[in-house]
Amino acid sequence: MSRSVGIVKSKIFHCKDELSLACGQSLKEFELVYETYGKLNSKKNNAILIPHALSGNHHVAGKYHKADKYPGWWDNMVGPGKPIDTNQYFVIGVNNIGGNDGSTSAKSINPKTKKIWGSSFPIVTVQDWVLAQKKLIEYLGINQLYAIVGGSLGGMQAIQWSIAYPDAVKKILCIAAAPSLTAQNIAFNEIARQAILQDDNFFKGDFYQHHTKPKKGLRIARMLGHITYLSNDAMDKKFGRKLIQGKYNYNFQKNYEIESYLNYQGDKFASSFDANTYLRMTKALDYFDLEKIYKKKLSKVCSKIKADYLVISFTSDWRFPPARSKEIVTALLDNNINVTYAEIKAETGHDAFLLHNDHYHQLISNYLRS
Amino acid sequence: MSRSVGIVKSKIFHCKDELSLACGQSLKEFELVYETYGKLNSKKNNAILIPHALSGNHHVAGKYHKADKYPGWWDNMVGPGKPIDTNQYFVIGVNNIGGNDGSTSAKSINPKTKKIWGSSFPIVTVQDWVLAQKKLIEYLGINQLYAIVGGSLGGMQAIQWSIAYPDAVKKILCIAAAPSLTAQNIAFNEIARQAILQDDNFFKGDFYQHHTKPKKGLRIARMLGHITYLSNDAMDKKFGRKLIQGKYNYNFQKNYEIESYLNYQGDKFASSFDANTYLRMTKALDYFDLEKIYKKKLSKVCSKIKADYLVISFTSDWRFPPARSKEIVTALLDNNINVTYAEIKAETGHDAFLLHNDHYHQLISNYLRS
Repeated sequence: MSRSVGIVKSKIFHCKDELSLACGQSLKEFELVYETYGKLNSKKNNAILIPHALSGNHHVAGKYHKADKYPGWWDNMVGPGKPIDTNQYFVIGVNNIGGNDGSTSAKSINPKTKKIWGSSFPIVTVQDWVLAQKKLIEYLGINQLYAIVGGSLGGMQAIQWSIAYPDAVKKILCIAAAPSLTAQNIAFNEIARQAILQDDNFFKGDFYQHHTKPKKGLRIARMLGHITYLSNDAMDKKFGRKLIQGKYNYNFQKNYEIESYLNYQGDKFASSFDANTYLRMTKALDYFDLEKIYKKKLSKVCSKIKADYLVISFTSDWRFPPARSKEIVTALLDNNINVTYAEIKAETGHDAFLLHNDHYHQLISNYLRS
Repeated sequence: MSRSVGIVKSKIFHCKDELSLACGQSLKEFELVYETYGKLNSKKNNAILIPHALSGNHHVAGKYHKADKYPGWWDNMVGPGKPIDTNQYFVIGVNNIGGNDGSTSAKSINPKTKKIWGSSFPIVTVQDWVLAQKKLIEYLGINQLYAIVGGSLGGMQAIQWSIAYPDAVKKILCIAAAPSLTAQNIAFNEIARQAILQDDNFFKGDFYQHHTKPKKGLRIARMLGHITYLSNDAMDKKFGRKLIQGKYNYNFQKNYEIESYLNYQGDKFASSFDANTYLRMTKALDYFDLEKIYKKKLSKVCSKIKADYLVISFTSDWRFPPARSKEIVTALLDNNINVTYAEIKAETGHDAFLLHNDHYHQLISNYLRS
């Protein structure tokens, strides 16, 4: 029996409501590209929302064609008989405002000017995304989500949901996330942004009209990202000091396997990802700071929450290490919220949240069934 | 009483000997810029060599003019009454081959072509540097150095000295170093190199003729370096999530203090440092691998060593963490070499080796006197 959701098709939700953004600007209307897997039951109480992380999108599971080389980004997690079981749950994947894959973004036409937004597209935040996702959920006729399952930046959206709409979600599964970025996290984001902003092909964000892309900057940004997704140990195990041809080449061509890997990942990303999206995603990460948004201590902010929580971290994740997840757990416990915390032993760093791991998958499956 | 070496002047050592490099090429002749502090005694047995790290040079201590804003890069360590006491020792600072500050490098004239070397300047290694430094030491009439004190890449040169010339040095002080880079270390270097190599103003290394510099790439490289020099905790303590103007600006201008710091450091470096030097320094780091060079296990490589060793690491250094220093210690112990190991408690990350710390400075001072 196949454990895939099979061939899927994305849909578009066109929302005519004005969306007021945290930055002060607003979108007169907007579109969200989304996918669903499984069936919404008659009580409409089996829906699970999966918000995406930095470079993710709405295509969570399945393939578009039989010949598709790769399935959706969390296909190991979502499907019939999988931890997020589409035989039981109605699963929703959605591309965020400002995203790379079809939702209203800098690549879209600004209805006011009839021109591509480009540089004038606003800075979007986690709050804005949750606001837009709520509209989609309402449009699908769902009053309360059974769960939101989010990893990394997706975990931040899950937290924000439980605060902004306490009655609209029963369970939050918050994975490899943090209540805010550290100075080091922001530093990595800023270097990625500088690489893009300073690329001669960026044209201050209006590169579309020049029929070009700031690929050099995007490459650097992505290579840098990959360092923070993998643990030092995982990199050593996978690449170590292995040389591509077994010897020093004494030039600046690729020499070590780790160089080859990073350059490959950088090239792949640069040809498919939108620079304005990347800039905005990193900014949304930087700006996610519940204490700043709600002008209260984290414990106070969490007093609104009604959902039960499963918080998961991975031992070797140095981007959002276990200590950051524990900050969330502590704030929840301060409010007597029903919270389960698990620190999963994994060597693969931040990437662990996307990879198969028996303990991790069993935990998600059990928690959703409980 | 002043504890400064005072006003200093750099000198040039012009070596007419051919220098055979590890890459297979050779330099017909070469120049090394160097400085000395203190006096060489009549027995010529009080000399201490201080090789520099990635962005360092020969200007270790003192000032060039009274109005000089900053002294040499290790002025807190070297001077009369300081841990490396110039009342006792004759201290030598030297700019390496390929370096930024006057020694033969890509900016020099190739004697064969009478043109600037530029892209054709060879890739240099730690072995090459030590070879050249040995020539300088001989020129100064010194048979045996009392000590070599090196931090980071400087520590690697110190190790290499003790293997290549076992009789030419009595004491090695190897600080915040490693016997080789990890995959993660190489990854950071490769991203820095890619930023420079892909800069439109790099002109494949021949930017001098175009009267320009790959400043954008150098900026990124330096910003990235700074992340690895500081610990996560030090960054949080110094910058945290502090905003320059106390509020979100919702654009891509500098918003957090950490962004301002990194951009400032990047700009400063890009206007003063040579891109070809940066590329070659990172490559020398990547290529320093005693097991690869000598085709033996580290313990076997260290069997040649006669010098006593002081190995120092810093608790919060994640670029070359204590575990890497312990690899060196273990290999030395395997050979019954007289080795002292100290792990200094410091919050400041890899940068700690350059900063004042009472325990650290006392340790260096005592070890040199012992």
